[in-house]
Parts: sequence; structure tokens; C-alpha cells
Amino acid sequence: MRYPNGKKYLKSEEESEVKKDHRTLLSAANRGMSLEEDINLSNDYYRDNGIALINKRPTPINIVKVDYSHGARITDAYFEKQSTTDYNGVYKGRYIDFEAKNTKSSTSFPLSNISEHQIVHLKNVIKHGGIAFFIISFQTKDEIYLLDASFVIEFYEHGDRKSIPYEVFKKEGILIRQDYTPRLHYFEAIDALYFK
Amino acid sequence: MRYPNGKKYLKSEEESEVKKDHRTLLSAANRGMSLEEDINLSNDYYRDNGIALINKRPTPINIVKVDYSHGARITDAYFEKQSTTDYNGVYKGRYIDFEAKNTKSSTSFPLSNISEHQIVHLKNVIKHGGIAFFIISFQTKDEIYLLDASFVIEFYEHGDRKSIPYEVFKKEGILIRQDYTPRLHYFEAIDALYFK
Repeated sequence: MRYPNGKKYLKSEEESEVKKDHRTLLSAANRGMSLEEDINLSNDYYRDNGIALINKRPTPINIVKVDYSHGARITDAYFEKQSTTDYNGVYKGRYIDFEAKNTKSSTSFPLSNISEHQIVHLKNVIKHGGIAFFIISFQTKDEIYLLDASFVIEFYEHGDRKSIPYEVFKKEGILIRQDYTPRLHYFEAIDALYFK
Repeated sequence: MRYPNGKKYLKSEEESEVKKDHRTLLSAANRGMSLEEDINLSNDYYRDNGIALINKRPTPINIVKVDYSHGARITDAYFEKQSTTDYNGVYKGRYIDFEAKNTKSSTSFPLSNISEHQIVHLKNVIKHGGIAFFIISFQTKDEIYLLDASFVIEFYEHGDRKSIPYEVFKKEGILIRQDYTPRLHYFEAIDALYFK
């Protein structure tokens, strides 16, 4: 493993201690931080280090009224439902597309906040040869998994229950390593799943 | 060529006549229509016919105030500059990224409305193996070209003039065929440039 400056990473006991301290601090700080923020910071790291280019799609907003008297100021608007996913981008030429969600449940991930539109979108991504997945954070366990979208689509369309059991993530997903920089080593999981 | 319902397309004289009429009407109507609208409609066609999946990124908006008294209503916000491009998506597994612009000039495309951020973004797309281009509409000529982003980057960074001469589009770009459905056959240009 190499740091951005090209210096080789030395896994000395001293550095391990520093890392552990960082992680402890981070873990405490993290409770108030969002998964979205962690992913955005990780994407900055991946972009700045030339690893991958992933961007968050802006939240779609329906604009009703704009006041042009002092520049263009939006005075009336409302949020629209995202019809695609939150993130997409490029890695080794391939198209990457994913959605990130939290759950407070420790036994399953409820499918209630995944929309039909998102399922249709992800099916299309897979159909066109793109890489599609979910990043699901089990907050009470402090575990974050990457799970290929095909499992979510399968449970959404044919599952008896309106949720995906935690065991599915354990068995079919990849546990994302949490760290300082990047916060989430989720490209390790992408490499393991899609670029072996 | 097949229609969505699987019926084979019959190029009878009658149908050709109908098409021509449509095109004449369309051409007149088009003057008031935007390039963006044409691209969005073409993207709908490409998605619905299983050819490619391209989405427009929502305009990023900075929200200042939200009124929660009658649902979530945005009462103060302003437009942010798009730091990436307007469109991206997936075609045959590859990542596609592009920006679309109009110009009223018939001799050159002015670079004044391309931002530094967009150039950086497109350089990153190319670096990671994605397909990056511009769709430029010369409105007075009723010609729309697809030009690989590398030419725009080159002119932006090393050009003497703050514009790209029309001749560059003629020589290095691909003239996009305009039609009824899709409005813009821009995937023909993508095939010719990147999938030969």
C-alpha cells in the first residue's frame, strides 16, 4: 500500500498505534456523521489520487418561482424524488452506479425506502453492462456492506418479506473496510467483486 | 430497423412521405425548441429501446431556507454552477460523459461558457477510460456536431483564440443526423468514433 505522495506505507507498531487512535476518534465522531458525508469524502480521495471518478447526483428540485430582482433567487421550489440513484461515475472505463442507505435495524435492511424507479434504473444499468450495487450501513453494528444490485432487485421483485436479511449481506456482500483516508475503502470491495 | 413493438420497419414510399412531412414540421417547430429538449427526448428513445442509458444531471441548487409548515417547501435558494457536465450514462458497459452547447456563431464555437471545472472533470473522465465529448449545435447552420472532448480540452488549454473554429468540427467531429425519433441520432456518431 502506498500513500498519495508515493511513500511506501510502513506498518510499524508506532504507526499502527496512531492509526488506531485515529480510528477510535473517528468512530466516536462518526456517530454524528452521515454515510453520505463518508462516501463524498472517500470519492474526493479516490478522485484526487487518480483511482476513480465518482460523483453524487444533485438532488432534483422542481422550481416554481424565481425572483430576478437581485440576481436569480429561487423563492418557491420543492424536492423531487430521485428517479435514479445518488452516485455514478467511471472506474477503469466501466460505468459505476450505486445507491447508499442506512438502517438502524440489526437483522435486516428494509426495502421501503427504495423506489420502484430506482429498481428500474438499476436493472437498466446492469442490462447495459454497467456495475450496479448498494452500499448499506448497519448503524447499530458499525458495519457497512457493498451488495450487488441484482440481490436487491431479486428481493424487491420476488422476496416474501419487504426486507433483505442481514445474513444475505454477510454471505453475498463485501464488508467495506472503514479507515481514516479514505473513510470507506469501497473500491477494495469493487475490485474483489467485479475486477478479479 | 425494428420498432419497439418488434414490428419490422417497412420503408414504403407512403411511410417515407409521412416521415418527410414530419421532418418539415419538426424543422419549423425546432427553431423554438432547445438542444437540451432534443437530447432529453433522444435519451428517452435510447433508454426505451434498450440502446443506452443516459441521464441528465439535475441542476445543482444551494438551499438556504426550507419552510416545513406545509410539507417541505424551499423558500430561498440559488443556482450553483455545474462542476461536472450535464449528461452521463452507460453504453455497452462503457462510461459516457458529455456536455451540450448551442452557438449562434456560424464560424466558431466560443469557449466562454465552458468552465475550468468542466475541463478538469472531462480530463478525469478520459484518464479513467471513459468516453467524453461535446455536442455542439451551430444554430444558424442547423448543424449539430459531436466532437471528442480532447479537442475542446486542447483548444481550452493551448488555443490562441478563445474559440474553436467551425472547420475543426467539420474535420474532426461527426455531424449528427437529425430525425423524428430519435431527434438526434447521436449514438451513430458514438459508434463511428468509439466503437469501430
